[in-house]
Amino acid sequence: MANEAALPAVTICEVGPRDGLQMARDILPTEIKLRWIRQLAQAGLREIEVGSFVSPKLVPQMADTAAVVRGALEIEGLTVCALAGNLRGVVAAHEAGAHVVAIPISVSDTHSRANVNKGTDAQIDMVRAAVDWVRAQARPMRIDVAAATAFGCSMEGHVPLQRVVDVAADLAATGADAIALADTVGYAQPAQVRATVRAVRDAIGARLTKLHLHDTMGLGLANALAGLDEGIRAFDSCLGGLGGCPFAPGASGNIVTEDLAFMLASMGYRTGIDLPQLVAARRLLAESLPSEKLRGAVAVAGLPKTFGAA
Amino acid sequence: MANEAALPAVTICEVGPRDGLQMARDILPTEIKLRWIRQLAQAGLREIEVGSFVSPKLVPQMADTAAVVRGALEIEGLTVCALAGNLRGVVAAHEAGAHVVAIPISVSDTHSRANVNKGTDAQIDMVRAAVDWVRAQARPMRIDVAAATAFGCSMEGHVPLQRVVDVAADLAATGADAIALADTVGYAQPAQVRATVRAVRDAIGARLTKLHLHDTMGLGLANALAGLDEGIRAFDSCLGGLGGCPFAPGASGNIVTEDLAFMLASMGYRTGIDLPQLVAARRLLAESLPSEKLRGAVAVAGLPKTFGAA
Repeated sequence: MANEAALPAVTICEVGPRDGLQMARDILPTEIKLRWIRQLAQAGLREIEVGSFVSPKLVPQMADTAAVVRGALEIEGLTVCALAGNLRGVVAAHEAGAHVVAIPISVSDTHSRANVNKGTDAQIDMVRAAVDWVRAQARPMRIDVAAATAFGCSMEGHVPLQRVVDVAADLAATGADAIALADTVGYAQPAQVRATVRAVRDAIGARLTKLHLHDTMGLGLANALAGLDEGIRAFDSCLGGLGGCPFAPGASGNIVTEDLAFMLASMGYRTGIDLPQLVAARRLLAESLPSEKLRGAVAVAGLPKTFGAA
Repeated sequence: MANEAALPAVTICEVGPRDGLQMARDILPTEIKLRWIRQLAQAGLREIEVGSFVSPKLVPQMADTAAVVRGALEIEGLTVCALAGNLRGVVAAHEAGAHVVAIPISVSDTHSRANVNKGTDAQIDMVRAAVDWVRAQARPMRIDVAAATAFGCSMEGHVPLQRVVDVAADLAATGADAIALADTVGYAQPAQVRATVRAVRDAIGARLTKLHLHDTMGLGLANALAGLDEGIRAFDSCLGGLGGCPFAPGASGNIVTEDLAFMLASMGYRTGIDLPQLVAARRLLAESLPSEKLRGAVAVAGLPKTFGAA
């Protein structure tokens, strides 16, 4: 189609190898993780969060992240992201060669203290130190910060919009490259997503790049649509809707990559994703993690007759 | 709250007793149907499609619809709807005392012929005859027509927008009270919902009242949000996401009433629904239809801490 190139591009960052696997009962061997990451990249995902540099005692599923990063770096054209919870993790991500380090901090002070035993302000200081450290290195590394519990908290409940804006502004002031808003516990609703994106963008402009949404209440794709309407062009998601938050009781999985990709493609956004290949990448996951329940509609229903035909 | 009355009202029409039960393997006894309908009304649903007047040989689950309508009429404040597939069904709905008769016709001529052995034009003639017949009776009865396969067809595939507009205009010209657009097979996507609602409203104005959406591809609530944004203030849905279409292979259930009600309420729309009571009404369904799989997120996750607190 002649006008295909004119459609806006949307980046889906697959976080399954990190947010999905950290919650899984079984620990995937490094080679299986890399085989899965290669399948995801083959299906057209250009940005994958491959693991996290956190305490292997707390999250043994992520103990091999350095090896996974190194393996993923061999995949041509792939932007390799790794999560880090503190400066030590950021250093480890840089040493492993990650293109992007993602640092989550919590907008809810209570959630932050429960999660990492530090308040939000101390975590913003940590981000500032991390940015300063990274900028002093010879090899550049993109720094994404996720403002967790930006749409509500399982402990504090309602998180005031002004608080979200203030934390986002503080994070932007650290010099981090990009700020994401994360619905860590899945409390967001579309009107709130719109209002929050608008207010945060008013405060920090294009530094706000991404939404990280969960499907706890079934509103994940409606919330993604609301973000899309407000100009958000990047989303985190997990193949098969894996994932959750060990510190947010009751929270279910991330939005489903293949359903999100289907929605975006059917609306005319370019994602670069081959949907049948993406759906096929569920097979390895289903075989390797038999105790995890894969979610998602597209994989069950199959692509509709109208897909790609309009 | 002082300004609560200022929020827009949205009508949820529960179609579970019709669209849900017609697909169920087990046949619910009349008394169980009525007990369930009473629970739904008690939870605040003000409009319920309680059954259909169709051939009991084809759809034995609906053989007791006249008795169900009569029982539902005893529930104070409830608008009792019944589906009818032809003039004979419309007469039966009127005789039983239904407040509303819902007549589905298919925008896709192929789907229409496969479904009822008549093309779309013949079905529009049938609607016209039904309207004329109802208007000649002493007791008024609201006539809702649903334009099925308005967003795609499992047989024809893409259904052109102009075709949807033309059929909607023909239906409005019959004098029917209200036209709904139905995503019978679940192929709709949000941009299409917006464009279709706009085009059909341009053609028939406020006569377009409602969307009937399925969750086949996981986009049900995103599509509802798109309709809501375009001013749609009425939606069909099924408790537990029951339902489907016997003539649309692969189509999964309707959008989930409790998840839709949660989205609307959390966005500030008035629905009149008590969510915990609505969720509790799943129990009778689960006990009475053990072979049906109930879907939905809110019922599993529970209401978030922020609900009703903002």
